[in-house]
Amino acid sequence: MTEFKPRILITLGDPKGIGPEVIAKALGDPTVAARARFELVGNEALFERACELTGTEARFAKISKIDLPEGPSAEQRGKYVYDALCSAVEICLQGQADGLVTGPLEKAALWDAGHCVPGHTEILGRLCDAAPVMMLAGGPLRVVPLTTHVALREVPDQLSCELVYDIALTVARSLKLDFGLDDPKLALTGLNPHAGEGGCYGNEEKTILEPAAEKLKAQGVRIDGPLPADTAFYKAAQGEYDAVLSPTHDQALIPVKLLAFRSCVNITCGLPIVRTSPGHGTAFDIAWQGVADAGAMIAAIETAVLIAQKRRK
Amino acid sequence: MTEFKPRILITLGDPKGIGPEVIAKALGDPTVAARARFELVGNEALFERACELTGTEARFAKISKIDLPEGPSAEQRGKYVYDALCSAVEICLQGQADGLVTGPLEKAALWDAGHCVPGHTEILGRLCDAAPVMMLAGGPLRVVPLTTHVALREVPDQLSCELVYDIALTVARSLKLDFGLDDPKLALTGLNPHAGEGGCYGNEEKTILEPAAEKLKAQGVRIDGPLPADTAFYKAAQGEYDAVLSPTHDQALIPVKLLAFRSCVNITCGLPIVRTSPGHGTAFDIAWQGVADAGAMIAAIETAVLIAQKRRK
Repeated sequence: MTEFKPRILITLGDPKGIGPEVIAKALGDPTVAARARFELVGNEALFERACELTGTEARFAKISKIDLPEGPSAEQRGKYVYDALCSAVEICLQGQADGLVTGPLEKAALWDAGHCVPGHTEILGRLCDAAPVMMLAGGPLRVVPLTTHVALREVPDQLSCELVYDIALTVARSLKLDFGLDDPKLALTGLNPHAGEGGCYGNEEKTILEPAAEKLKAQGVRIDGPLPADTAFYKAAQGEYDAVLSPTHDQALIPVKLLAFRSCVNITCGLPIVRTSPGHGTAFDIAWQGVADAGAMIAAIETAVLIAQKRRK
Repeated sequence: MTEFKPRILITLGDPKGIGPEVIAKALGDPTVAARARFELVGNEALFERACELTGTEARFAKISKIDLPEGPSAEQRGKYVYDALCSAVEICLQGQADGLVTGPLEKAALWDAGHCVPGHTEILGRLCDAAPVMMLAGGPLRVVPLTTHVALREVPDQLSCELVYDIALTVARSLKLDFGLDDPKLALTGLNPHAGEGGCYGNEEKTILEPAAEKLKAQGVRIDGPLPADTAFYKAAQGEYDAVLSPTHDQALIPVKLLAFRSCVNITCGLPIVRTSPGHGTAFDIAWQGVADAGAMIAAIETAVLIAQKRRK
């Protein structure tokens, strides 16, 4: 039986960043190019420049063109990136594409263009009218930060039993739907050292995390925790858990970037559409030199293809 | 030239834990046994039982005997562990030993015996009249948590420029004295996601960490940061840094335990004596079954030997 070859959209991301060149490199790889029917969403001239820079011969039947002035200001870059994302999401929601991979954007440019959100995930949630959850996957790990771009001082007050419950449920569903796991097993790490060591160092484990875990178990979700964070990721890397949920951004991202720095993929769970992106940012400091590593973009494309195939089944 | 063979003391740790058996296993390894002149500090019958359990033939000329009643209560275990530690430190301070490796203790037993401290490190600081700093070493990483056993909610207020400065200076000195690095390079990670991203998510980077780093540089310490924690450990693992200092316990311990779960060593920097221990705890749940892995104890012994040799030079 021929494998389903999904239609995958790719936005080029910020024109000043490494997005265009890593996309050109990725699609210049015949193995990657053969995996799906790709369609770009962005500026045609920009992508041609990226192909020239990287010496790739990526040619596409389709590119959804988005206007971008020459030598764009931050505001113009922000508008361009936002327009491309809206256009791509619209195509997916209309059922004309099976998944979306996004190139990295710059938050400051987005803000200059009047879109004051931390990044892609929040915009996607609004455009899809859904509650998106960010998952990072790399090497043997899938991790989910329960809070993301917030000062550490505010994390304890941002956590709630409802927040943990809702995110864990979304993750458990995504592991079934998107990754084909029949009965996924989650780990929940503590907020405090040693998961509070029985209340010696903070009580959020007892007041928030334990009740959330109990409520999830009552709903049939397999979840262990709150576990000491310094051992949970080792166990997950050994295959004991399908995903680890962590109260802080750094708890979750340190281990996955340590084990898979060059192939870390961001997956947005809980959306009606399939969406992935490379785990890195715009990397302005090395952009348009042709040196950027396409490993994470290739991994993001592969992951989007696999999820689109799983959802089709 | 014959290599200096240091005198290394080993305390057996809590009698209910895995300390005695992993020490017996470690010393039963001829390569380990040949590395130093070892002397145990603890209960003789306890160690004999551990040797029988593990089928090891470890025989010692010297054991500094510490009283331990049969079937000890938690209070008696705490007193025994504390007495052994005091005795061992005294021997080291008198110059009759070159280093100390400690078996794991149980905090609750220590507290029952009236010693209300989080663990070995604090007792060692008091006995040696010094400001000890906990370093964990494993695989390619050396990490130092700037705060340890404290609720996450309290971490931002526990951090201060002086704290970071004092710890970093102790670590830089230890890397020279104990590890023989001529010009060590440190990384300091941020407290907040993306190291605060220019003040967007918390300001401790600007008010505490940056001033501390500047003050350290003025003292000739090579230090980068505050860096985003989710990329700093990857860079350190690639060899870019000799140690990483992190505001929270979990930031520091997650990566080192992920890369070196079975060989992680705790090193107390800033003491007049050499002291190491395995990175694990008492593991009551698997103790006295003979199944405990001695890898971390062997690594702790090796590290103590190497540091004692460096200090001798």
